[in-house]
Amino acid sequence: MSRARARLADRFRRIFAIEAAAGILQWDQAVWMPRGGAELRGRELATLARIAHDLLADPVVGEWLAEAEADGDADPWVRADLREMRRRHLRARAVDPALVERLQEATTRAELVWREARARSDFALFAPRLAEVVDLVRERARQLGTALGLAPYDALLDGYQPGLGDAEVTRLFAPLARHLPHLVEDALARRREPLRPAREFPPEAQRRLARELVARLGFDFDHGRLDESTHPFCGGAPPDVRMTARYDPRDPLSGIMAVIHETGHALYSQGLPRDRLGLPVGEDRGIAVHESQSLLMEMKLARSRPFLHWLAGRLEAHFGPEPAFAPDNLVRLVQRVERGCIRVDADELTYPLHVILRWRLERALLAGELAVSELPAAWREGMAELLGVVPPDDRRGVLQDIHWSLGAFGYFPCYTVGALLAARLFAAMRRDLADLDEDLAEGRFERILAWLRRRVHARAARDTWTELVREATGGPLDVDAFFHQLHERYGVHRVDAAEGRP
Amino acid sequence: MSRARARLADRFRRIFAIEAAAGILQWDQAVWMPRGGAELRGRELATLARIAHDLLADPVVGEWLAEAEADGDADPWVRADLREMRRRHLRARAVDPALVERLQEATTRAELVWREARARSDFALFAPRLAEVVDLVRERARQLGTALGLAPYDALLDGYQPGLGDAEVTRLFAPLARHLPHLVEDALARRREPLRPAREFPPEAQRRLARELVARLGFDFDHGRLDESTHPFCGGAPPDVRMTARYDPRDPLSGIMAVIHETGHALYSQGLPRDRLGLPVGEDRGIAVHESQSLLMEMKLARSRPFLHWLAGRLEAHFGPEPAFAPDNLVRLVQRVERGCIRVDADELTYPLHVILRWRLERALLAGELAVSELPAAWREGMAELLGVVPPDDRRGVLQDIHWSLGAFGYFPCYTVGALLAARLFAAMRRDLADLDEDLAEGRFERILAWLRRRVHARAARDTWTELVREATGGPLDVDAFFHQLHERYGVHRVDAAEGRP
Repeated sequence: MSRARARLADRFRRIFAIEAAAGILQWDQAVWMPRGGAELRGRELATLARIAHDLLADPVVGEWLAEAEADGDADPWVRADLREMRRRHLRARAVDPALVERLQEATTRAELVWREARARSDFALFAPRLAEVVDLVRERARQLGTALGLAPYDALLDGYQPGLGDAEVTRLFAPLARHLPHLVEDALARRREPLRPAREFPPEAQRRLARELVARLGFDFDHGRLDESTHPFCGGAPPDVRMTARYDPRDPLSGIMAVIHETGHALYSQGLPRDRLGLPVGEDRGIAVHESQSLLMEMKLARSRPFLHWLAGRLEAHFGPEPAFAPDNLVRLVQRVERGCIRVDADELTYPLHVILRWRLERALLAGELAVSELPAAWREGMAELLGVVPPDDRRGVLQDIHWSLGAFGYFPCYTVGALLAARLFAAMRRDLADLDEDLAEGRFERILAWLRRRVHARAARDTWTELVREATGGPLDVDAFFHQLHERYGVHRVDAAEGRP
Repeated sequence: MSRARARLADRFRRIFAIEAAAGILQWDQAVWMPRGGAELRGRELATLARIAHDLLADPVVGEWLAEAEADGDADPWVRADLREMRRRHLRARAVDPALVERLQEATTRAELVWREARARSDFALFAPRLAEVVDLVRERARQLGTALGLAPYDALLDGYQPGLGDAEVTRLFAPLARHLPHLVEDALARRREPLRPAREFPPEAQRRLARELVARLGFDFDHGRLDESTHPFCGGAPPDVRMTARYDPRDPLSGIMAVIHETGHALYSQGLPRDRLGLPVGEDRGIAVHESQSLLMEMKLARSRPFLHWLAGRLEAHFGPEPAFAPDNLVRLVQRVERGCIRVDADELTYPLHVILRWRLERALLAGELAVSELPAAWREGMAELLGVVPPDDRRGVLQDIHWSLGAFGYFPCYTVGALLAARLFAAMRRDLADLDEDLAEGRFERILAWLRRRVHARAARDTWTELVREATGGPLDVDAFFHQLHERYGVHRVDAAEGRP
């Protein structure tokens, strides 16, 4: 290894160690931290973020990179590592430090105000803070775009899913926006009302079931933990993966599906190649890919009929007999489609419509085509058009998500791009693994995990987004598999192929 | 505030934030971390330690200090803050970075080997690793001493209890070594064998009792947690204090006393002045002072007759009737004196003798008067002389403590200096608080905590060691109060005053 590459590896491993430390601190903040620790914790995380940023933006990193790139190493892992290092270094240097600081202050304020505004359903309270954030994010996107040679919104997308551009998002979202509203109508017309459980399910029993399921899916408890927090998440310092669940005594199914979702994330993190740990090429390939792993696990596998038939037995073993959890009723409960106002409660048919609304609005905000003051009306209009419902208040409308208050513009599309990738991966997995349904009907995930390890996890960030999609699924991303699987599961009408194809 | 002082405050607050982050990571490591997380965690902590060190050793800190010192601010807090900053900066710059690195590697190796050697009771396995550490620590002490104008061993003591020198330790330990062996004999002759509990006590009930006691002592659960780990400790990122307990079903009393001991540490940490948080002057005054707080709480207050009579009622409330926990028997159980081989199990009479042995041996090792190979024999000899017992093997002898493997020479004396300070503080508290025994007999700690806050906690590191002892207790440290309290509690003979006085 050349001197420059050795120095780069050392530098990036240090940055990784700092980010890993921050990951554990964030986990602790959500799971254990007493409220009196909040202020100091904020200072700890800000200090670590600044140190990591300075190590990354350091001009000497650019010099080492130039030297290492000139070596022209042919190993694809090395080339990819240098590509990722270059990308991060460019992004870290692209934005004026004064702007970074102003944005940090503005988002800290905005998040606080957002919490209060949401509680009081008072958009006017939030509007000036959001306007501040939008202005600063617009400037940040401009500076990033200039440095990376990307359009401003593409530069934001690149921060979450490197390689994903708005042209691709637009191509994929157009057929979804066109067809999904009809498919939702179709599904609702076919829906058979499930029997709902009428009793409570002790958290202790839910906890035991969750641990059993998570272990079955392949989670390695020697490299991670399952704890509890208000909002389930998967974080920590991979491969030491810390995921959390939430056990609502009245709704065990949502808790179980959430924990399976997080396990999809966790398995990806635990499956990254250990020998690349700490190098940029050894990290995950981006938010949309991460989301494809959680959605494949939850939406495609765990909400499938064969798995639910198996799960019914485990529910009975842990909770005793419950008519609502009889296999066929369980399928109706878990596969039910509903027009709701809340994104995080949405099913796989309606979820993309929530995302498309936010994607349209955030692009319009950044382009200056929509004023922050016009947002609530635009939100209600969009909900009526896409989902056929209008939120009764802003708390359940435009104020429901934290993302914009944090300055996370360009994040929302990753959820639905991830869902489309999950559908493609599921189709490819079915082709490769004969009798996949039998595995699911027996609660066996060994072949599934091995397939994911090979096709996605072990590749880490070696491939670009486009390469990874093609290598893992056999072609470029489109909406066909997604529509096809909706047809299969919900009996909704077929959507012509060739839409959303590149 | 001058520009230099503002920059110093900013720099030291950053260092504090990094150290606070490390505190939480170390807590997580002991309490929650899966074993697969160990390697990455080691890298995280090493990275943070190096960053904090570099920020502290940075030459610009010396320039700011010179500028700020020249301002000649009269505020005692400011002067003390600059004094502590100067001390830390000097220590960080004193040691050759290559030596720091070699010592880091040597102690990492030595600790690993020590664990195995202890498990196998095989000193020969550990000896070469320990010899390496001793050589490097000797050189480190020399470099530190040169920079600080201190004798080498004093420079090591200064790293744990700033301001404590070996002359003072020698003055204090001489009468202890002379009289304690006879007092132990005396106490054993007077001992009445207690009835021992013959059943098990569910950890769940112990946990509830521990939380109740900790809250009564004044622990603020909004700024801390009580969890569990193999070895109880108090850490975290004060004022977010994370302490741990261990609940042995067969020995609830040792767990309770340990948790009270840790609460003494925790109350000190939580009582440090919040408006100085992150500045060196706002931190604790050193290990011996910290130990005085835990030992005062455990040895002087919780093991006192009036408190134990109150505790008997709480034990019955949580565990049901138990003859061994009848008040007078409980006192005999908790105040029993025993000649043992293990330091951490020792009572307040024998503990200092364990410390004196280690202090003699570590000074001799560093001075080159004792070879590592001679250590086991010297240990046995010293145990026979001081404690009248000889450990049956090295596991229960020279291999029992982790300290030397970590390079922590100069630490042991702090335990016993802390015990002497606890005795002085207890005497002063009794003078100040009329009817203190009544508070203890009712399990009330409000006045006690307020007294400690005023005399010790709120002073943080404003006073030097010598000033703090004088201000808090009315005079220089001596052994009189310690001996007097042993006489009172155990009925052992009086030791003439005026010994160990400066």
